[in-house]
Amino acid sequence: MERLPGFRDFYPEPLPQPDLWSAEARQYIFEKWRAAARRYGFREYDGPPLEALELFTTKSGEEIVGQLYNFRDKGQRDVSLRPEMTPTLARMVAAHERSYKKPIKWFALPQLFRYERQQKGRLREHFQFNADIVGEGDPAADAELIALLIDTLRSFGLTAEDFVVRLSSRNAWHDFFSAQHGEGAAEYAFYQIIDKLEREGPESSGPKLAALGLSLEEVQAFIGQAKPTAELRQILENLEARGMREYAKVDYGVIRGLAYYTGVVFEAFDLRGEFRAIAGGGRYDNLVKLISNGKVNLPALGFGMGDVVLLELLKARGRLPKFDPSLDAFCLIEDPALRGASLKVIQELRSAGLTVDYSLTPAKSDKQFKRAQELNAACSLRLDRSPAGELLARVKNLKTREEKSVPMAQAAAQVRAFAAG
Amino acid sequence: MERLPGFRDFYPEPLPQPDLWSAEARQYIFEKWRAAARRYGFREYDGPPLEALELFTTKSGEEIVGQLYNFRDKGQRDVSLRPEMTPTLARMVAAHERSYKKPIKWFALPQLFRYERQQKGRLREHFQFNADIVGEGDPAADAELIALLIDTLRSFGLTAEDFVVRLSSRNAWHDFFSAQHGEGAAEYAFYQIIDKLEREGPESSGPKLAALGLSLEEVQAFIGQAKPTAELRQILENLEARGMREYAKVDYGVIRGLAYYTGVVFEAFDLRGEFRAIAGGGRYDNLVKLISNGKVNLPALGFGMGDVVLLELLKARGRLPKFDPSLDAFCLIEDPALRGASLKVIQELRSAGLTVDYSLTPAKSDKQFKRAQELNAACSLRLDRSPAGELLARVKNLKTREEKSVPMAQAAAQVRAFAAG
Repeated sequence: MERLPGFRDFYPEPLPQPDLWSAEARQYIFEKWRAAARRYGFREYDGPPLEALELFTTKSGEEIVGQLYNFRDKGQRDVSLRPEMTPTLARMVAAHERSYKKPIKWFALPQLFRYERQQKGRLREHFQFNADIVGEGDPAADAELIALLIDTLRSFGLTAEDFVVRLSSRNAWHDFFSAQHGEGAAEYAFYQIIDKLEREGPESSGPKLAALGLSLEEVQAFIGQAKPTAELRQILENLEARGMREYAKVDYGVIRGLAYYTGVVFEAFDLRGEFRAIAGGGRYDNLVKLISNGKVNLPALGFGMGDVVLLELLKARGRLPKFDPSLDAFCLIEDPALRGASLKVIQELRSAGLTVDYSLTPAKSDKQFKRAQELNAACSLRLDRSPAGELLARVKNLKTREEKSVPMAQAAAQVRAFAAG
Repeated sequence: MERLPGFRDFYPEPLPQPDLWSAEARQYIFEKWRAAARRYGFREYDGPPLEALELFTTKSGEEIVGQLYNFRDKGQRDVSLRPEMTPTLARMVAAHERSYKKPIKWFALPQLFRYERQQKGRLREHFQFNADIVGEGDPAADAELIALLIDTLRSFGLTAEDFVVRLSSRNAWHDFFSAQHGEGAAEYAFYQIIDKLEREGPESSGPKLAALGLSLEEVQAFIGQAKPTAELRQILENLEARGMREYAKVDYGVIRGLAYYTGVVFEAFDLRGEFRAIAGGGRYDNLVKLISNGKVNLPALGFGMGDVVLLELLKARGRLPKFDPSLDAFCLIEDPALRGASLKVIQELRSAGLTVDYSLTPAKSDKQFKRAQELNAACSLRLDRSPAGELLARVKNLKTREEKSVPMAQAAAQVRAFAAG
C-alpha cells in the first residue's frame, strides 16, 4: 500500500534513498524555529488541523475553495484541512484576547494542506513556522517581526550572502494606484498583476495593466525608484540599530498575493534566485475584526516560513548538519550469566539520562561490536568480574580506544566523561 | 467563528480559563516522550495525517469505518485522517525494511483522529506517543518496550504508587479458549467479550459467553489464577533485572480490543482507578505481512500513550510543573535617545542565546517594569551613560535586587550570570 500523492513520510537517518524525507532534519528545523521564537519572547500556540470551511472563505473569499483540502464531514459540516494558520490565530486571539497583554507575540509550527491539481513532485502539505504580533500598529512591531525572520535564518548558518528580505508596502502601492486614477474596485486585481509581474513577464502583465488603464512603464518606474515610505524608513532604521540593515532592502516588486494584507509586506529570498520565497508575511490590520464579526479590533502582522524551501536551501548551501544515529554507550553482553546485571547497568545509565542500546538477544561478539559502531556509540560497555569476584564495568572510548574498568556504581559517570570528551 | 466540536486549541500559559488546553503542557509532554524514547535508542519517524482508507480497513476490517474521520477527496480517493499510527508504521517499514538493521526501534508523536458520535467533552483528536520494535520475536523485545513505557511514566515523576502495567497474553487466552473447546471462528468475538468484561459486568458478559458455549465462572477463575505464560515469566524476570518488577503484574483481565494482536498485550493504569488506560500495546506479528501484501514478514510490537489521560493524571497527582512565561532579561527603554542602542544590546543578548523582550513602543517606566515582572524576567536591563559619556548596561537581578553596571560588551555575560543564579 502506498501513501497518498503529495504527502511525505519522514524516515530516520541514514535515509534509504536520497529522495526520501528525514525525520531528523525536520526535527532540527523545528527546534531552530522554536528556539529563535523563544529568544524573541514569542509564546507557542496551536489550533486544530481541521477547521470550519467558513473560517477560510470568510478571510480569502470563495475562490480559495479550489485550493483547499476541504470536504463535508459525517456531521454534514463543511470543513477543511488548514491551508494557513492566520485565520486560526485570529479566531483564537478573538476568543480570549482580554486575557493576554498586548502586544501578543505568538508562534506556531503547524502542518498546512492544500489540494491543487497534482503536479510532479508538488506537495500537498508542508510545515510552516508562523510568528505573529497582535495589538501593535506601530512599525516597531514590523521591525521586531522582520528581525526575528532574519535571525531565524541566521540561526541555520545562513548569512547576508545567502538571503535578503525584500520589503514593500501595500500603502505605497495604494498611493501609486490612486495617483494613477485607478478605480477602487480594481485595486486588488491590480495587486494580483503586480504579484505575478516577475513570474509572468511584461508580455502578459502589460495588457492586463492596460486593461485597468495603467501603463507597465509607470509601474516599472515606480518599482525601480524604490523610495521607502515613512513606515519602511522606520523599519530600516530599526534594523540598522540592531546591526541587521544588510539583510533588508526596499523592493516594490513584492506585494504578496493574499487579499488581506493592509500595510508593510515582505518576502525573504535566496540571493542566487534558485528557490521560491523562503518566507513571507506582512500586516493584516483588519483580519481579527473580520474573523470575530467585528467584536475584536486589533492590528496584527505575521510571517510564515515553510520547511520545504528552507530544507532545499540549507542542503544547497551545505548548512545542514549530519543526522546519523548516535549513542552514549552500547552495552556488549557476551556472557549469558551477565545479561541480568547488564540490564541493570543499562537501566541505570538510561536513568542517568544517557542514550544506551544493546543487543536484545544473544549475538556473537563481533556482531555486537559492529552494531555499536553502526550506531556511532561513543563508548562500549561490558561487565566483567574482578579476581575477587566483584562486578566491574569496562568502559571503552570508541574514538580514542582508551578503556577503564570501574565499579558498577561509577559506570554512568565514566560513560558521561568519555561521551563528553 | 468557533472551532469544530471535539478539537482543541492550545493556548500559551497562564491560561485564560482552566478548561482550556495549554500549549506549554503539550510541549512539555512531547519533550519527555521524545527524551525517553531517545535514551532507549528509538529513532523518530512520522507519516502523513491523511492516508488511504484501505490502509485502515485492511488492518481492522470494514467495521472500523464507523469510527474513522474518513471522506472522499477531490481526486475521488477514499481517504481518512489516521486513527492510529501502526498501519502507517507497517507501511513505511515494509517499503524500506532492507535499509534498516533489525530490530528496528522507532517512535513517533502523531496526532490521531476519530469520528464517533459526539458526546459531551469527548475529543475527536489526541496526540499519542507511539514506540515500536520491528524484527524481533523474542520476549526480550517485549521487555525492552515495556521498560520504555514504565520509564516514560517515571520521567514525569510518577511512581509505583501511581501506576501499574497489567500484562496479559493472547496466547494464554488462545490456549484457554481451545481447552474450553471454543470454536475457532468465534475466537475474536470471545476476545471482544473479555475486553469489555470489566466495563460491562457479569450480567451482560455472562449470557454472551454462554452463547459461545463458555461459562463466566471458568473465565473468572482463569483470570483469577493469573498464572504467567513462559513469555510473561521471561518478561517479568527481565523487568526484575532492571529493577522494574514492581511496576508490572500479570492480569488476564486485559486483552486489548483490536483484532491484530498476536501475543503479549499490556495496558498501563493509574492505581487509584480514576482514569481510562494511560497506555496500551502488544505484539502484532502478522501486521507488516498483511500491510505489505505478503512481501515483508517481520514480527513486531508497540504501544501508544495518549496525551489526554496522561495530562489528567499528571494534574490530579500534582506532577505538572508551572508553565508561566519567563525571560532572561527585559530591557527598559526610558530615554528615547537610547532606543537605538537598546535595540543593539537586545539583539546581542538574543544572539548570545538569551530570551529578551522589551516594550516595542515608548511606555511609562512603571508600565515597562510591571511588564518585566509579568513576564517573570530574571533581570531588567537599562542603558545609561557614565560621567565620561560611555554607554553602560545596568543589569538588575529582579529576584535578589542586586544591580551591576557593566560595559555594553559584558551585558550578555552579566544577564547570564544573574539568570543562572
